[in-house]
Parts: sequence; C-alpha cells; structure tokens
Amino acid sequence: MKLWDKGFSTDKKIDHFTVGNDRQLDLLLAKYDVIASQAHAKMLGNVGLITTDEADSLVTELDKIANSIEDGLFTIEDDFEDMHSKIEFLLIEKLGDTGKKIHTARSRNDQVLVAMQLYLKNELTEIKSEVRILFDLLLNLAEKHQSVLLPGYTHLQIAMPSSFGLWFSAYAESLIDDLYFIHAAYKIADQNPLGSAAGYGSSFPIDRTFTSSAMGFETLKYNVVAAQMGRGKVEKATAFGISSVASTLSKLAMDICLYMSQNFDFISFPDELTTGSSIMPHKKNPDVFELIRAKCNKIQAVPNQLTLITNNLPSGYHRDLQLVKEVIVPAIQDIKACLELMHFSLKEIKVNTTILDDPKYDYLFSVDTLNEMVTNGMPFRDAYKKMGAEIEAGTFKPKKNVKHSHEGSLGNLCLEGIKKKMETALDWQQ
Amino acid sequence: MKLWDKGFSTDKKIDHFTVGNDRQLDLLLAKYDVIASQAHAKMLGNVGLITTDEADSLVTELDKIANSIEDGLFTIEDDFEDMHSKIEFLLIEKLGDTGKKIHTARSRNDQVLVAMQLYLKNELTEIKSEVRILFDLLLNLAEKHQSVLLPGYTHLQIAMPSSFGLWFSAYAESLIDDLYFIHAAYKIADQNPLGSAAGYGSSFPIDRTFTSSAMGFETLKYNVVAAQMGRGKVEKATAFGISSVASTLSKLAMDICLYMSQNFDFISFPDELTTGSSIMPHKKNPDVFELIRAKCNKIQAVPNQLTLITNNLPSGYHRDLQLVKEVIVPAIQDIKACLELMHFSLKEIKVNTTILDDPKYDYLFSVDTLNEMVTNGMPFRDAYKKMGAEIEAGTFKPKKNVKHSHEGSLGNLCLEGIKKKMETALDWQQ
Amino acid sequence: MKLWDKGFSTDKKIDHFTVGNDRQLDLLLAKYDVIASQAHAKMLGNVGLITTDEADSLVTELDKIANSIEDGLFTIEDDFEDMHSKIEFLLIEKLGDTGKKIHTARSRNDQVLVAMQLYLKNELTEIKSEVRILFDLLLNLAEKHQSVLLPGYTHLQIAMPSSFGLWFSAYAESLIDDLYFIHAAYKIADQNPLGSAAGYGSSFPIDRTFTSSAMGFETLKYNVVAAQMGRGKVEKATAFGISSVASTLSKLAMDICLYMSQNFDFISFPDELTTGSSIMPHKKNPDVFELIRAKCNKIQAVPNQLTLITNNLPSGYHRDLQLVKEVIVPAIQDIKACLELMHFSLKEIKVNTTILDDPKYDYLFSVDTLNEMVTNGMPFRDAYKKMGAEIEAGTFKPKKNVKHSHEGSLGNLCLEGIKKKMETALDWQQ
Amino acid sequence: MKLWDKGFSTDKKIDHFTVGNDRQLDLLLAKYDVIASQAHAKMLGNVGLITTDEADSLVTELDKIANSIEDGLFTIEDDFEDMHSKIEFLLIEKLGDTGKKIHTARSRNDQVLVAMQLYLKNELTEIKSEVRILFDLLLNLAEKHQSVLLPGYTHLQIAMPSSFGLWFSAYAESLIDDLYFIHAAYKIADQNPLGSAAGYGSSFPIDRTFTSSAMGFETLKYNVVAAQMGRGKVEKATAFGISSVASTLSKLAMDICLYMSQNFDFISFPDELTTGSSIMPHKKNPDVFELIRAKCNKIQAVPNQLTLITNNLPSGYHRDLQLVKEVIVPAIQDIKACLELMHFSLKEIKVNTTILDDPKYDYLFSVDTLNEMVTNGMPFRDAYKKMGAEIEAGTFKPKKNVKHSHEGSLGNLCLEGIKKKMETALDWQQ
Repeated sequence: MKLWDKGFSTDKKIDHFTVGNDRQLDLLLAKYDVIASQAHAKMLGNVGLITTDEADSLVTELDKIANSIEDGLFTIEDDFEDMHSKIEFLLIEKLGDTGKKIHTARSRNDQVLVAMQLYLKNELTEIKSEVRILFDLLLNLAEKHQSVLLPGYTHLQIAMPSSFGLWFSAYAESLIDDLYFIHAAYKIADQNPLGSAAGYGSSFPIDRTFTSSAMGFETLKYNVVAAQMGRGKVEKATAFGISSVASTLSKLAMDICLYMSQNFDFISFPDELTTGSSIMPHKKNPDVFELIRAKCNKIQAVPNQLTLITNNLPSGYHRDLQLVKEVIVPAIQDIKACLELMHFSLKEIKVNTTILDDPKYDYLFSVDTLNEMVTNGMPFRDAYKKMGAEIEAGTFKPKKNVKHSHEGSLGNLCLEGIKKKMETALDWQQ
Repeated sequence: MKLWDKGFSTDKKIDHFTVGNDRQLDLLLAKYDVIASQAHAKMLGNVGLITTDEADSLVTELDKIANSIEDGLFTIEDDFEDMHSKIEFLLIEKLGDTGKKIHTARSRNDQVLVAMQLYLKNELTEIKSEVRILFDLLLNLAEKHQSVLLPGYTHLQIAMPSSFGLWFSAYAESLIDDLYFIHAAYKIADQNPLGSAAGYGSSFPIDRTFTSSAMGFETLKYNVVAAQMGRGKVEKATAFGISSVASTLSKLAMDICLYMSQNFDFISFPDELTTGSSIMPHKKNPDVFELIRAKCNKIQAVPNQLTLITNNLPSGYHRDLQLVKEVIVPAIQDIKACLELMHFSLKEIKVNTTILDDPKYDYLFSVDTLNEMVTNGMPFRDAYKKMGAEIEAGTFKPKKNVKHSHEGSLGNLCLEGIKKKMETALDWQQ
Repeated sequence: MKLWDKGFSTDKKIDHFTVGNDRQLDLLLAKYDVIASQAHAKMLGNVGLITTDEADSLVTELDKIANSIEDGLFTIEDDFEDMHSKIEFLLIEKLGDTGKKIHTARSRNDQVLVAMQLYLKNELTEIKSEVRILFDLLLNLAEKHQSVLLPGYTHLQIAMPSSFGLWFSAYAESLIDDLYFIHAAYKIADQNPLGSAAGYGSSFPIDRTFTSSAMGFETLKYNVVAAQMGRGKVEKATAFGISSVASTLSKLAMDICLYMSQNFDFISFPDELTTGSSIMPHKKNPDVFELIRAKCNKIQAVPNQLTLITNNLPSGYHRDLQLVKEVIVPAIQDIKACLELMHFSLKEIKVNTTILDDPKYDYLFSVDTLNEMVTNGMPFRDAYKKMGAEIEAGTFKPKKNVKHSHEGSLGNLCLEGIKKKMETALDWQQ
Repeated sequence: MKLWDKGFSTDKKIDHFTVGNDRQLDLLLAKYDVIASQAHAKMLGNVGLITTDEADSLVTELDKIANSIEDGLFTIEDDFEDMHSKIEFLLIEKLGDTGKKIHTARSRNDQVLVAMQLYLKNELTEIKSEVRILFDLLLNLAEKHQSVLLPGYTHLQIAMPSSFGLWFSAYAESLIDDLYFIHAAYKIADQNPLGSAAGYGSSFPIDRTFTSSAMGFETLKYNVVAAQMGRGKVEKATAFGISSVASTLSKLAMDICLYMSQNFDFISFPDELTTGSSIMPHKKNPDVFELIRAKCNKIQAVPNQLTLITNNLPSGYHRDLQLVKEVIVPAIQDIKACLELMHFSLKEIKVNTTILDDPKYDYLFSVDTLNEMVTNGMPFRDAYKKMGAEIEAGTFKPKKNVKHSHEGSLGNLCLEGIKKKMETALDWQQ
C-alpha cells in the first residue's frame, strides 16, 4: 500500500530504486513517528478536528505500537513504503475510519521532519553522554600518569618535554570544543516542524504550540517554509557536530598508532586489543585504533556528502532529500561506536615510564636550559648561540628536572579548570 | 631577517614557496598581534620577567604600531617573513635590548594562535551583525509583501499556495539557525592560547589568567597541547559557521535566479542590479545573485579544505598548519561581501503582485478545496478521488480565498515570534 | 577461524567493529578471489613450490567454489572474517594439507588487492557498456526530435533558440568525456598486484609475469610497495571515473526536473514513471529523476570520502584501507542503477512540440535578427541599439525560421561525428 | 568599457564584486585569447564574413599584442572587465571598424572556453614534463641506493625488509598512474569549443573545422550545448588529474617527514633545505616537505570545490561558472611549484646506510626465516608457532641475508620495466 497510489502499478524496478533501505532505517525512527502521531492526535482532539474519543483511541493504539517497537516486534514489510504507511495501516486495521483520521492536517513531509528531529535530539544527547564518559576517562588517565614525561614534537622533530598528563588532558579539553557544535545542532533540531504539512501549512486550524510542548520541543520552527528548509539542514548541523568529535578521536587514534610503533614505543595495549599477522608472528597491530581513525575520517566526509545532495536545490521539497537519512543515520551509529570503542580500549592503555631515558631525547631540554641561562642574565641571542654550539659539538648536557608551573603546563595541568569548563559546556543550552 | 636564521642562507626559491602570501594576509591580522603583544608585555612586567618600565615602553611603542596599522601605514617588506618579525624588528629598532625582551616566554606558534583567535572573534561578531541586518530586511519585506501570494512548489511541481510573506520570513528564520554555529565557533575562539609557546608551555612563571583577561577572552585554553591543537580547529569551526550562513544565502540566491527567469517572472530588480548581454539586448541577467550563489557554494567547500590540510597529522605543530590562514581569511571576506551584497540588492526587489492570475496556478488550491470537502463531512479518500477526477476532466474550479490561520502559516506569519527567537539567539552566549 | 589467531580470544565487540559489513561485500568479490587463487595455484605448481598434482587439485576445488558462487550458494558465516578465510577453509576441508598450501607465498593483503582490481576491471567494463547504451538512446532521441525547438537559456534567462536535437545529443557527447576517466581508472586497475604479499614481496621464487597473464592483466604493477600503495588509489581512480559519469547524469536529471515543471512544461513522462501526492491529486512528481540526481550527487562525494580515509597515511598497509571497500562498492552499484534507470525512464520521454508558440519566447530570435541586420550591412552597435529599442517598445517581431548551419549547431548536429568520436573513445585503450 | 553596457552605470560595489581577481588571472590566459582570436579572424576571412585584408590586419595586430604579452608589457586596467575587452579595445584603437569585426560570430562565452582549454592543454603538458623529471630522479635514486635496506612497516609496525630501491621506485611507478588522469583531462580539453557562441551556436556560416585545426585541437566539441557544458567540466577533469599527482606527492612528503624524525632517522637533508626554531637550536625542520604535503592536500580539495560551484545548475551558462577560473589556475600553479620543489629538494637527500644495525629491526627478518623453514619442509602452522615462541622468548636470531628475487621485489626492482611503462604512458594519447 502506498499513500499516493493512483490506480496504476508503478514499475517494480523503480519501486526498488526509490524506496532504497528506508524500511531498515525507519525501524530506528519509528518510535519517534509514534510520539509525534500521539501529539498530533491529541491536538486534533483538542481543536475539534476529531472527537476526543477518537483522539484517545488513536493514542491508545499508538501506545501499543510503541510497545511493539520497544520489544523489537515492529516490522515494515515490503508492501509498505515506509514506517509512516505501516503505522497508519495498523491504526486503520484496528480503528477503521478513525485510524484514517490521523492523517488529517498533516503530510508525510512533516511527519518525516518531526520524527527525524526527535531522533536527532535523542542521539545528540546520547553522543554528549558518551563524550562526557570519554572525557572523564581522559582526565583520570591524565591525573594517574601526570608525572610521566613524553617527548613533545613539532614538525615531528623532538622539541620539548611533554607528559602523559598533558597529552591525555589535551584531548579531554578538545572534546569540550566539539560539544559546542553538538549543542548548536541540538538547538536547530529542537524546533517543532510539525504542522508545516507539505511545506506550506494548511487551512486546518491546528495548534502547533500544543504539539511543540507535547513533544518536548523548546520552541517551534514557526515559518512552515523554514520548517521544510530544515530538511537536510538539521542533518548537516548534526554532521558538523559529529564530525567535530570525529576529528578529535581521529587525531587521538593517529597519535596512538604512532606511539605504538616500535620506533616510538611510548604505549602498549593488552593482546586482546591488538591483532596479529598471518605471516609475521611478532606483530601487535593497532587495528581498533586504525579503524577508529578511518571511521572518524569517513565521518568527516559526511557534511560534504549532505551539502552535495542538498545544494543548489530551490526551496520546497524535492525527493533528493530522502537520501539524507541514509547518510546521517549510519554516521551517527559510527560515531557512537567509535566513542564507545575508544573508551573501551583506551582504559587498558599501558604507559612506558622510562621513555626519556633514551639519550636521543636529551635535546628536549635545550629550551629550558636556554631559558635558565636567560633568566640568569645571558642575552637570549647569546644563549641561543652557546647552546647551538654545544649541541653541534655533542657536549650538550640536559638538566632534566623540568619545572613548568604556569597554568596548563605539565607542572600545573589545571584539571579542575578543565572539568569545570566541561560542566559549563554541558549546561550551556539549558 | 628571520627569527630562526642559523647563519646560512636558505635558498630563495624555497623562501618564496614557504612564505606564500602570508605578508598580505598578515596586514589584516597585525592589529591583533599588537593587542596580544601588549597583554604579554604587561604580564611580563607584572611577574617580574621584565621591569615595569620596560613593559611600559613596549606597550607605548606597540600603541604607535597599532596607530600605523589603523592608518594603513604599516607594511611588511620582503625582508620580513611575517608580521611578527616586522613588529619585533620595529620594537628593537626603537627600544634596543628592551625590544628583544618581548619574545621572552612566548613562541611564534602561540603568537599566531592568539592573533588568529582575536581576529576570528572580531570577524564572527561582524558576521553576526551583518546577518542581523539581513534578517531585519527579510522580516520587513515579509511584512510589506505578506499578502502577495506565490505558488508553493514541491518537486518543482506546482503544489500549494505560498506567499512572499512566507518566502522572505522563511529565510529570516533560517538565518537564526546559522547563528548557532557562528556562536559555537565564537565559543571555541574565545579561549586564550597565549602562553602555550611552541605547544608545550615553558619554564617561565607566566600568568596566563592575566593575559586572558587583558585581551578580553572569556576563559583560557588551559592545556598547552590543547591550545596548539586548536590551530586549524578554530578555523574549521569558523568555517562550519560561515558555511552554514553561506548555505542559506546560496539557496536564497537560487530561488531569486529562478524567480527572475521569464518562466516564473515572480520578481525583478532595477537595471542597475542586472547585467546585459553582448549579443542579446533583452537580457537582464541576475549576475549578482549568481555570484553570491557561486561564492557561497565555494565557501561551503572550505570546511573540507581545512579538514584535508589538517587531517591525520599527529598532535604537535606542523608547518602544514600555516596554510589554514590563506584558506579561512578570504572565505571570511567572501561571506561578508555576500551578506552585504545580498542586503544591498535585495532591498531593491520588486514583487509581481498578480502571479496567481495565471490559470496554470489554479491547482494550487486543490488541497484547500479537498480539506473543505473533508471538513464538510466527505471521507478523505472519496474527496481525493472526486477532486482527481475533476482535475483530470479539466472541470476543477479553485476557491482562491485561502484561509490559513495556524502558527507559521501564510495567514499567521508569527513575525514577532521569529524576531524574539533572533533576540534570544543573539544573546545566547553572553 | 581467523588467520591471525594467536590463541587468545579477541573481544567480541571489537570483532564486530573491525569486521563491519565485509562479509556481505565479499559475496560480490569472492569470484575474483577464486580466479586469483587459481592463477596463484598454477604458478606455485609451475615454479615447483607445490607439485603439479597439488596445483591441479587446488584448481579443481576452486572451480567448484566458483560454481557455488555463480549459483548463489556460497556463504560467509560469522565464524569467518572474510571470503579469503572461508575459501581457504573450504580448500583445507576438501584437500587437507594441500589446501593449506594455497597460502604459500602470498598474503591476505595482496589477495584483497588483486580481487578488488579484477572486480573493478569488470565493473568499469560494465559501466562503459551502460554508458554506451544510454549514449545510443540519447543520439536516437536527438535524431528523432531534432527539429523540435526549445528555448536556450543563459543565466536561466531566455536567450537563443535551442532544440531537442541539441539537448539530447549534448548529453551524449558529454558522456564521451566521462569515458576518458573510466579508461584511466581501468588502466590503473589493469596492473597485477599479486605477489606483493604484505607490501614488501617475499623470498619465494614466484613468477608474477605468469599470474599477470593468467588473470588477464595487461601488465604488472612491478614494485611491490607501489602495488600496496595502489590500495585506495585504484578505488579513488574508479571514484573519479564514476563521479564524472554521475555529474553528467545529475545535470541531465536537473534539466528534466526543471522541464517537467508546469512553469516550463517542455517534456512529460507516462504516469508509471511519476509519483503522486497524498494530498495533491494533480501532482505528477519526477521522483525517479530526483533520486537519480540525488544519488549521482552523493556519488560525487565519493572521491573526497576516499581521500579523507587514505590521506596523510605514510606508505605501507594500515587497517584504515579496509574501509575503502564499503565506500566504493555501493557507489559502483549506485551508478549502475542510475545509468539503468535513466535509460529505462528516458526512453519514455514525451516531447512538447509547440513550446515556442508561447510569445514569451519571441526574444529567443533577437540575436539571429540582429545578425541578419549586420549581415545586411548595418554596423553591429547600431543594430544592437535598434533591436534594444524595439524590444523596449514591445514592437519586436521575431523571424522564427532559424537557419543555423555550422558544425554542431541546431541545423547541423554532426551526430555521425559524435558517434565516431564515441567509437574512438571506446577503442582508446586497446 | 564593458561589452554589455546598456547606457546606465552599474553600481561600483557590484562591479568590484563581480569582476573579482579576473584581471590578474587573465594575464596568464591572454596569450590564448590571442591565439584563438587569430584563428577566428582567419576563418572569418575564409568564409567571407570579413575581407581577407581585414583578416590579415587583425592577425597582424594580434601578433603585436602577443608580443607585448610575451614581453610582460600587456596590462588590463580597471576600465576593462577582462582580457577580452582589453584586446578588443586594442584592436579597435588600431583598426577602427575592422577591429570591431573580430567579435562577429562569437561570444565572450566561447572566447573564455577556448582560451581556458588552450591554457589547460599547455599546462597539462608542462605538468607531464615535470612529472617525468621527478620520475627520472626517483628512478636514479632507486638505482643508486638500491642495496640499502629499510624497515618495511604495516600498521606502522615493523614488518618486513624493504629498501631505498623499493621506496624510491614505488613513487616513480605510482606517478605513472597519475599520468593516466592527466591524459584523460588533456583529451577532454583537446576539443575545440569555439563557435558555440553563447552556448547555442549562431546563424553565421562559420567553419569550426578550420579553427580547430588552426589552433591545434585534435577534434572539435561538436555540439554547441556540450561545448558550453564543458565549462567547469574540463577544469574539474584537470583537477582530478592534478589531485592525483598531488596525492602521490603528499604521501611521499609524509614519508619524508616521518623518516626525518629522530625516531626514525632514515634520511636527512642539507641545512639549506631545513629550517630552525626560534627557541630550539637543535631543530632541523622539514618545512619544505610539510608545505608540499599541505599544498598537495589543499589541491586534493579542488575537485570538490569545483563540484560545489557547478553542481545542480541546469544546462546553459550561469555566471557561477566564472568562479572556476580562480580555483583552477592557482591550483595548477601550486602543483607545478610542488613538483619543482620536490625535485629540487629530493635530489639532495642523504640516506642512512646503517639503519638495520639497530636490533629493534631484527624482527623484520622473521617472515623470511619462516619461509625458509617452510621451504625446508616444516608445515607452515608449525613453523609459525616455533617462530612465535622464539620471539616471545627473545631467542629469535634473524638471518639478514635477504634474497628476494621475484619481479618487483627488493632484489629485482624491474626499473627497466617501470621506465618502459612510463614511456608507453607518455605516448598513450598521441
């Protein structure tokens, strides 16, 4: 059954082409269509477009559908184009003409919009939680290993002393930045589009303020054309948010893969978290982190995918917009898996505590030595030349008792400040 | 003069390759390097790394440099690698050894970071203002033309009645969404990186809290490694923000180009805002809007450009990061020009008030007619069939007295609600 | 069973994360692993690393596996990481120790490489065929409708007379350009990587020239490190090729959607190829073409996806490269579906033969009229002004007997020339 | 003076917005506009649209303009919109009415198209030469250092023995693949668009076959609509080609930066090719290679930039297309600079010949040892376990006399085969 069937059968090939994998994706979204349908039904009852008895029975049947979704029993057979058709079918099957009335004063377009936005709000909230969990782990690791030194690189050249404390908490503080984009996406999603119908509203006297508050939206997307223009836009906003998180995870994974190399040997992981080779028995490959990196890099391509699909389309709905669903939903699943796996794996990290014993890292301390000379009165340029000559001559002797004390330096990580900034960030939008 | 000169001359060809057009871009950024240098000098005085007299004379000389920048007299000759070298040179020229002391406890890396972030904060604020100005114009146009009807399209097919009120205010309300990303970018930029030196801090007892507040940052990016990782990240955040605005302008420009086509003929512009053809005297081409569209589409490629430049680099500074400047600065100039030109041109728009007199638009009213039949008691499916038959037979007569009354519909634009949402958005971060 | 199992069980969650949907994609690639395994087995027999009897029995068993794949009976259970493990398992099950010997002197890395390249060669050849079929249709349509005029637009403004002959054959000739990239991708894929092992060759005296010719490769990718660097590169080359085709199809689909709009009304399609609306009975939406456009736009994002996954990785295999498969395989399926659906639908196109009767198109003929005045001796600028004045005054009368005779103009389409160019293009690489 | 001036002055602000930096870019393209104008003038003379005397004097004057361009004396003042206006102005200044006749039967649209395609043909040929020069250097380096061993990595883990011979020649062979795309782009550019006028041809009896051969095009783009659709497409084809080269250079630069790190210390460069640090006297930073990497990564963003600018535009010219010039021209300059600098720098590379003396690389030889056991009769799985146990126990003793003999392995680089493949590739299209 298709809502728009006009009496002649559309070619099967086209049907397959046009429906795509929507049925599968809709299983994730169906609960939100039910929530929106319940709000819509109540509203129709309130404004008198249906009776309150009809509204009640619609809400009750939708509760049952919600339960079947919750229990994993809800299915969308090939006869149905999507979840909307199936849910409407179930209502009609149970309630007859009353079931048909659920479609009064709405269009599939705004059903899709509202279900997607409710879904995104939920997913963005979950992502925020997972970011928080990883953040906490990173801060704990920073605290635990704060005194273990690490070479700091610039240009991949040995530069200055760093520490595991700095390294772990750097990623923690970076994650806070990513949350600002998650928040921005949430704000955009948090505006009720229901009631925009096909993108131009309707002549029915519906109450959109009621449905907004019934579904828990902070506000409504007033303008019905703007509501429709949100299709693709809210998904792209989400894509910006998750690709921001992905960028941070990808960089962390890159560091980890490098540091696991025998040429660095800064960190290691238990055997269960590495993989071997079919012909090289000594290999302990960082596959999990390589895949996190790769998936996060793929996620970073998502904003551009969505831009290409939606760009240069005039206002008003186009079928093209259907494709944004199959791009954004897997990307959300991927970022959640990456966050989870990063946390799962990172907590097992083993840190090499004797890295700086290797004399090749002696040069790390040149700057501090230089600074000390300067502090003791030697002009900078002179100190710089003296040091350079010693290094050239191989007579440079580092003083390894690093004393960095300023805010955010390895001797003063300001973990409390970072924690507090995270708290503020999490509360930002409320 | 180059800061890192080691006594042998680097090949000229490489010099040209490595410096690029930094000198030109730095003219825009120099004022922010001065602001940061002043804060740094004061702080050095406060903590005793230089005398307060030295600090005062540095601040005074920097004031003079700031004035020369303001007056357009500041230049960066080919002898200087960038603004930082030139400004330091000027200080040394005037103050001798005291001038050299400005570089105590900082590195070019954090100078670049802090100047860029101050620049971005300023630009993002300006963009916000320009968005607000365009928003106001769009709402005014919506109010002025709110009763003029327009066909609403879905799939580029004539669908339902829309109006100029809806069309203009849809873009206004969409711009609010874009501001959330401008805000997110601002939040990320609004964290002082100064003091991170080459990305690993230093052994000097600097006071980063002081410089943060002296430069007007809301907070500091505590972790020095995180501060360095901000390079490229804060620019990408800005790119997300401006590409969000660009996406809205591009869509509006696309609508305008379409609506100016003789096949639509919904709107027109004075001759001064269109261009002609060398061989087609009747042409009035929407070049301004096409260029806004094209520039805004090019801007939408910027996040990906930045991702490609920065991605899969391990933590720590790499020279690659220098290139982000030449990507983000022109994009900022472009979005500002597009916002300004859109405002400049759009205010001259002339609206065709008799569009719907053309009988090809009669079908626009079919849905409302259908709804009326339903409201009067005919089951939806029956009404749908009756209407379809009339349309097929060419006997359909539309009732054009559209009465849409719900929130956000053409009869109830909720312009006040949209305005209030904008106010809230503008206040969001403070 | 995993090839690299070292005796401890890897966590299930990680297993799921790392394997992804490889098993499903491998069903498409398995036949090519069999082909490569047969060539490998024969070679091992030839050079004496196994006996010829062993080689023969491996080839025979692989034939049976090939048949099971052909018949759709081959499966990859969850116990197996991928097709390679499963095929090796089947060989061992049947042949015992002989089965194990298939893995002599090769690595999973070069198995994956060679199977992918054989797959891509086959798919690129199929895509070329489908492009050719669409090309033929477009030329036929151009010939059939060559005398039907169409407005030509610049800036979406009515500009000069065009024709369906020009329009259809323009897309045909454009498709030839796309083939050059398909060819380039084919050339890159047509170099045998087998024998590169894990990317550094092996100490076995294998004969790569033999396997190259046994599998039908034009040449071999000599350097084993280069062979490994081909991973991701050959897929990106293919992505360039198919995104070039996609770009042409997308533009054609955009034209079609526009021309089907009631504001143009240049073409139409039978009801079976359009879709309706749940609330607007008169709608005939071009969903197929919108989805072709959208899918083709999504395909155009694929090169960038692959670049992001593979970029800035040092040479040598990384697990990241596994992800290119899940990006390129669906894109290939999509472009093939789009080519097929475009052909399937386009052949039903109905052309409006009276478009230019509408007086709004009269201005189309202004240039020809201008040219005629010039040819008759009036200076261009004078003629341009006279014409402009007539148009301004509404007194312009067009002469619609368009006579364009030069090569490639509407009166001289050069379809034979275009056909011949296509033939040459198709023969290009052989 | 603007060609399309209609008597009223267009606002200055818009003028600046619309012209952009075209004048500067046009200095590079002007010589090609002259070449095309000469072919056009001769053709106009041949077909009798102007007299042969007029044609001759146009050609003579254009020769003079060509000389002034050659000598760097040609300028485009702010009074002129672009090179086309300026060149036409110069002709009129010298030849009066005859000068005006150069614009007969052509449009600025096809002037831009043909100049760009001539320019691209020339640049693609130059890029091919530079690729060849780098290829030759890489092969020379491979030959010179073929016996120096290097660790081969997979997953950034020490894997198997590689060599500088393999490493250098791998990049050489990879560059051949990139040429296939350069070729494809060349083929697309090598089709004369002149005569397509504004994209719909003209009523003048021009001879496009003549101009094609006069300008050295292999064929013509017959269909005038297809010729116009080439705008943006031929640039994107070029972008695919150069981004393919860029991808190879970027990877090589990444390897170099990694290998220069003290943690690898495989290679080094003379001081003139590295840069120092303002506060770390021991640093020798690979800035040149980092900038090659960054610029090449930025170049890889160009195809997507062009796609975003041109995508979803219906057929026919749009002003948007003007922007492709400012994207592609700098990208071409960048790839040429990167090729040149890579060659300039790479020829100074110093190779560390004692890398494998470090015992951490002993495991590299495990696979060969394993293979030897297998060759000597031990079943693979048993050998694998024995080796694994030895490695675990720290008793593994590598046999470093690596003997790889198969095609493309470190003992048999097949440099002649690679050279021959390059020759064939270079001859491909002729």
